[in-house]
Amino acid sequence: MTPKKKTKGTLIVLSGPSGVGKSTVIAELLSERKDIYFSVSYTTRGPRVGEADGVSYHFVSKEEFEGMIARDELLEYAKYVDNYYGTSMKVIREKLDAGVDVLLEIEVQGAATVKRKCPDAVCIFVIPPTFEELSRRLHGRATDDEQVIQGRLERAKAEYRQIPLYDYLVINDSVQSATREILSILCAEGCRVDQRLPMIRNQIEGVTAL
Amino acid sequence: MTPKKKTKGTLIVLSGPSGVGKSTVIAELLSERKDIYFSVSYTTRGPRVGEADGVSYHFVSKEEFEGMIARDELLEYAKYVDNYYGTSMKVIREKLDAGVDVLLEIEVQGAATVKRKCPDAVCIFVIPPTFEELSRRLHGRATDDEQVIQGRLERAKAEYRQIPLYDYLVINDSVQSATREILSILCAEGCRVDQRLPMIRNQIEGVTAL
Repeated sequence: MTPKKKTKGTLIVLSGPSGVGKSTVIAELLSERKDIYFSVSYTTRGPRVGEADGVSYHFVSKEEFEGMIARDELLEYAKYVDNYYGTSMKVIREKLDAGVDVLLEIEVQGAATVKRKCPDAVCIFVIPPTFEELSRRLHGRATDDEQVIQGRLERAKAEYRQIPLYDYLVINDSVQSATREILSILCAEGCRVDQRLPMIRNQIEGVTAL
Repeated sequence: MTPKKKTKGTLIVLSGPSGVGKSTVIAELLSERKDIYFSVSYTTRGPRVGEADGVSYHFVSKEEFEGMIARDELLEYAKYVDNYYGTSMKVIREKLDAGVDVLLEIEVQGAATVKRKCPDAVCIFVIPPTFEELSRRLHGRATDDEQVIQGRLERAKAEYRQIPLYDYLVINDSVQSATREILSILCAEGCRVDQRLPMIRNQIEGVTAL
């Protein structure tokens, strides 16, 4: 369901603890809203098995990444274990200016940076129905050992403390209900008076002076 | 579709020019969200043919109404042509405290009063797709003469100037799309961090200190 044509796109930031099901919700969201541009991050780490360039990440050299930093082309970036990870401001700005909604999946520190630089960004935090359920889902993956899982749960606790920085809190008790809530949030954001007034300026100016 | 249980109801204010189709949209909305309490106004004017007490209005005497004013029981009221019209604060407060969402259909001056007294109220203005369409709908009714219609259109222009006081602008190009937009707005408002944090306090307090 594509919303009515806007003059400027909405920047949507999605965060949530590892294991909450962000990827599944995002896939469902993008299948419902094919007009949304999903921003792929840049990284200097090498691709893992199954990771395609431009899909999982844009894989670039350290020199290329530092060039983007020098040219101030990044909305946010961070360095983990000698590798850079970041979001290109340039592409996002072009899309937003063309009226396209842009979705970023980003961790809490990056989200805080984005919110500071783009106060109009719509920031959504996804949580599981209960913390026990998060633990159950992480154990259910059966790919990580107990120490890794405990590390993820500890990190989740730290992320929970940042929830007040977000605009919306979506509970992922099912992919369908979480997706429906996000679709509603995006629809509602498009109905905000400040978003819609420019769209209907002709109707209003023909009638009165606002 | 009933939203997740909230600790406090949302006060929803709906306005829009005469002829925009508010009643039809409200009927559709209430059929989708049977949990919403639609607040019926109080008036001292006598019932017209087909108007039932407690449905169209609560019909009360001038003494009863002035008693409500004296006891500060009204959220907003106005006097038109020697008759009072107003909204009972008492009933609305009880419903909101019980976690029930309350819908008011109210004109722009009343909406401004409500927004001032209840800043958390979600104020939605409904407009037609074009102003010409509003004129066409008013003429299509075939119940009012041209002078009455022109009066309504003039009043609509004055109301348009108040749009910036509202939170959301819904375009009624079809009952279905307008209703869908309002449902999305209410769903999104229920997902706001300040609304949801109390709901999930147990989950969060079990995990961290917010």
